[in-house]
Amino acid sequence: MNVLYCLRRAKQFHGSSIASYREHGSTTQPAQALTWNEFYDRVYRAAAYLRDLGIRKGDRVAVWMLNSHEYLELYYATALAGIVIVPLNTRWHESDVDFTLKDSDAAALIVDDRFAPSVANLALAPRVIYAGQGACPGGMIPYSYSESHQVNQDTFEEPDEQDLVGLFYTSGTTGGPKGVMLTHRNLWSNLLYSMLVNLRKGVWLHSAPMFHLADLTSIYTITASGGTHCFLPTFDPEECMRLIERYRVTDTVLVPTMLNMVIHSPSFGKYDLSSLIAFLYGASPMPTPLINAAMSKLPTTQFRQGYGMTEASPLLTLLEFEDHSSDAVTSAGKPVFGTEVRVVDDFDRDVPVGQSGEIIARGANIMKGYWKRPEITAEVLRGGWLHTGDMGRFDQNGFLYILDRKKDMIKPGGENVYTPEVESMVAAHPAVLEVAVIGVADEKWGEAIRAVVARRPGAELSETELIVWCRERMTHFKCPSSVVFVDTLPKGGTGKIQKAVLRDQYGQPDRSTSA
Amino acid sequence: MNVLYCLRRAKQFHGSSIASYREHGSTTQPAQALTWNEFYDRVYRAAAYLRDLGIRKGDRVAVWMLNSHEYLELYYATALAGIVIVPLNTRWHESDVDFTLKDSDAAALIVDDRFAPSVANLALAPRVIYAGQGACPGGMIPYSYSESHQVNQDTFEEPDEQDLVGLFYTSGTTGGPKGVMLTHRNLWSNLLYSMLVNLRKGVWLHSAPMFHLADLTSIYTITASGGTHCFLPTFDPEECMRLIERYRVTDTVLVPTMLNMVIHSPSFGKYDLSSLIAFLYGASPMPTPLINAAMSKLPTTQFRQGYGMTEASPLLTLLEFEDHSSDAVTSAGKPVFGTEVRVVDDFDRDVPVGQSGEIIARGANIMKGYWKRPEITAEVLRGGWLHTGDMGRFDQNGFLYILDRKKDMIKPGGENVYTPEVESMVAAHPAVLEVAVIGVADEKWGEAIRAVVARRPGAELSETELIVWCRERMTHFKCPSSVVFVDTLPKGGTGKIQKAVLRDQYGQPDRSTSA
Repeated sequence: MNVLYCLRRAKQFHGSSIASYREHGSTTQPAQALTWNEFYDRVYRAAAYLRDLGIRKGDRVAVWMLNSHEYLELYYATALAGIVIVPLNTRWHESDVDFTLKDSDAAALIVDDRFAPSVANLALAPRVIYAGQGACPGGMIPYSYSESHQVNQDTFEEPDEQDLVGLFYTSGTTGGPKGVMLTHRNLWSNLLYSMLVNLRKGVWLHSAPMFHLADLTSIYTITASGGTHCFLPTFDPEECMRLIERYRVTDTVLVPTMLNMVIHSPSFGKYDLSSLIAFLYGASPMPTPLINAAMSKLPTTQFRQGYGMTEASPLLTLLEFEDHSSDAVTSAGKPVFGTEVRVVDDFDRDVPVGQSGEIIARGANIMKGYWKRPEITAEVLRGGWLHTGDMGRFDQNGFLYILDRKKDMIKPGGENVYTPEVESMVAAHPAVLEVAVIGVADEKWGEAIRAVVARRPGAELSETELIVWCRERMTHFKCPSSVVFVDTLPKGGTGKIQKAVLRDQYGQPDRSTSA
Repeated sequence: MNVLYCLRRAKQFHGSSIASYREHGSTTQPAQALTWNEFYDRVYRAAAYLRDLGIRKGDRVAVWMLNSHEYLELYYATALAGIVIVPLNTRWHESDVDFTLKDSDAAALIVDDRFAPSVANLALAPRVIYAGQGACPGGMIPYSYSESHQVNQDTFEEPDEQDLVGLFYTSGTTGGPKGVMLTHRNLWSNLLYSMLVNLRKGVWLHSAPMFHLADLTSIYTITASGGTHCFLPTFDPEECMRLIERYRVTDTVLVPTMLNMVIHSPSFGKYDLSSLIAFLYGASPMPTPLINAAMSKLPTTQFRQGYGMTEASPLLTLLEFEDHSSDAVTSAGKPVFGTEVRVVDDFDRDVPVGQSGEIIARGANIMKGYWKRPEITAEVLRGGWLHTGDMGRFDQNGFLYILDRKKDMIKPGGENVYTPEVESMVAAHPAVLEVAVIGVADEKWGEAIRAVVARRPGAELSETELIVWCRERMTHFKCPSSVVFVDTLPKGGTGKIQKAVLRDQYGQPDRSTSA
């Protein structure tokens, strides 16, 4: 089985339904409504075009774009042509993009209007394909295919289910960015398990970024059910509400940070959001006051929480709407059908119900491995189980509670930030003697990054100076948003910094104990 | 993925729910209610017991039993022990059982009280295990395991998804009985696609025979959802209704013949059937007056029609309840999610919508092949598609209409009867010159078998004589239920008997044109 099934099914049974509202750079003209028949033809032409450019089966092609119809089309066109898509995080610093292009050995980079100007800042740029709305910049290849690229279905061989659909870069459960290899089988399994939760033929708003796994599932499930896609290029709470009203959106996914911005927007109430049937949130912990506020402000919408990770394609557990009114609202729900989730000790033995341990998972949705990282792959997938690095416990009713990151990770706005990477950057400042980075609860971002820093004797350094210094050198979401200065960091017997002590002392948002 | 996942999930999330009502031969004592925790333990003990008997991974074990808790248990215990189950048709003649035991090279045969006495009539009997309620007959091994057979989960290796779960014997789409090899992957896929249709945690009555694929899906889906199994040992309309009332049954599957017997039973109305939420029927065409009568007699029950075959594990298309009130009621519905169904010409090219052709199908649910029949397997699965042998057409809304059997098959009461097999038997009678067998519509069995026979000059033979003669030599459901005598059979230019002409002339139930 492969994800192209979704597209074929949409054409076979929903050919004249609206597939996608394609915006075309004009705010005065309405978006172009494409049927599944038209969408299907475009995908075949686009795949033929990419092949004509000399991109071969198995080549990696990076996509650096905001949400759009073209992005959706590229997910299918690359899969059809056997090309491995490498979706780039739109919040990355150019240095991250350079790393990823090099690590994936990308044969081409596809950009839109937002990122075309940034290409000049890249140290390393392969062939660049321009998929924006304007004139193609010099030196780039236009993403333009014509009727001549219409090809017979038989031109493309059926992908093997073990073939890669994409490389999805993440900091993952063990340090350093790496490409998660997701196959047709992985994504097919995730979409089946997700459809067991929701099989409706809906109107989906891509409001979370399309490079992120939180949104990716919908690219397959909405297509498979013959539903309709529409796009929010980059997140803005008012624009999100405007599009929900305009297209009568029935389903979307947001991370808690975005949901917070929507329900506390001054424009809330200005738009008709009554079409929203179901609302999935996830990727980072949702504070209870926020979910309660959201449920009371959107009383006809069913909220569901997903817990997962890139390595699981991504869904592992789901908290159903019905369970939001129970004590289980602080849990991550139950394992979705098809996944197997256990809580184990350091020897992978089940711990009793109620006790905490590491969350491990198994299923056809679990990644093939990390791209060119056989050792980390073997470690993370040891014994045939994905070791998530998250600590959790099951209660007696089968609900899974996520307790802590076993590995050292912070998730501001749903992004994975691996603290050693931040600590390396902060420690590089000449005035810093030592540093430890911790996560603190944050109403807006779910979790924020705090650096606890000891300055070198006699050195001067303010909080603002350090934050600005980091922002000039690193992707913004990885930078600390607050700094606490201390004389010395607490250490254990082996000299290791005791982060648990720091979290106790400095882990409150108000920094009451800060020096 | 493998079907044991269902059992593990039932234990993990529904351990204290009722798994099964186990009858134990007493009509005065209530059935034993087993929880999923207890069921799980029994399966592990039973698997260890079968291993202790020397049955090894990959061995075939035939099961010749009526519906029961033990049958359900054996489906899981064999899968856990890596044993290939071979469910035997309970309506077979001993000669069919002999054929199957030999063809599958079965290491053991498991029987219940109903079939233990028939073992003596078998030409070939391997070791026989007795899983009945009484004392174990001499020469048989009791199906009795104890606490000492409780084993650690780690004793059994996890099956590979390409491992066989069972051999399911069928006449199939091309002549002669043969074992359909269904793997963990096949049955796992079918169960996912079926759960997309119905995910409810229900109470399932095994009223269709458990050797048949029409009932098999429920063995996995009901378990996976932590629902409850109960059993009708052999079909009887009143007993069926009594059990529905007694266990508050929510779901079951019946072939049209059985449904007919239920709704036209003199006892209809005597039992409370209001617990029935959903009702699946299939395996042979359902006359419109019958389905309409059933819907009006069971107004709160949702009827669904499935179309499939053993080779597809089995489900291919489904007619939803909503569509029963439309013109599509005479169709077989739409392909279930996960299967791919096409209607093609003799060169496997799609025919236009509205035109008829052979129905072919593809998906992870399609069998691995026929046991020890590589040539037929290659023929039936040519090009990666299952050639069903059924003729059909799609309408513009995606509904599939089954028009005719491309191959020569009759389905009395949902069984596949391949006409050449019946013709060979009839032709063996000394008074028969030539014969052709056709199907005729039958109110009770859906389809009945009629032999059109030319007697040898001067020979005498009555309808009754010929039917009795067949019944002494062949499985009853394969025997003609009516005979039409003619002087000569119509033949085409090549000398081939023109069955289409015979169907026109003698295909009416009333035999108005019979000689």
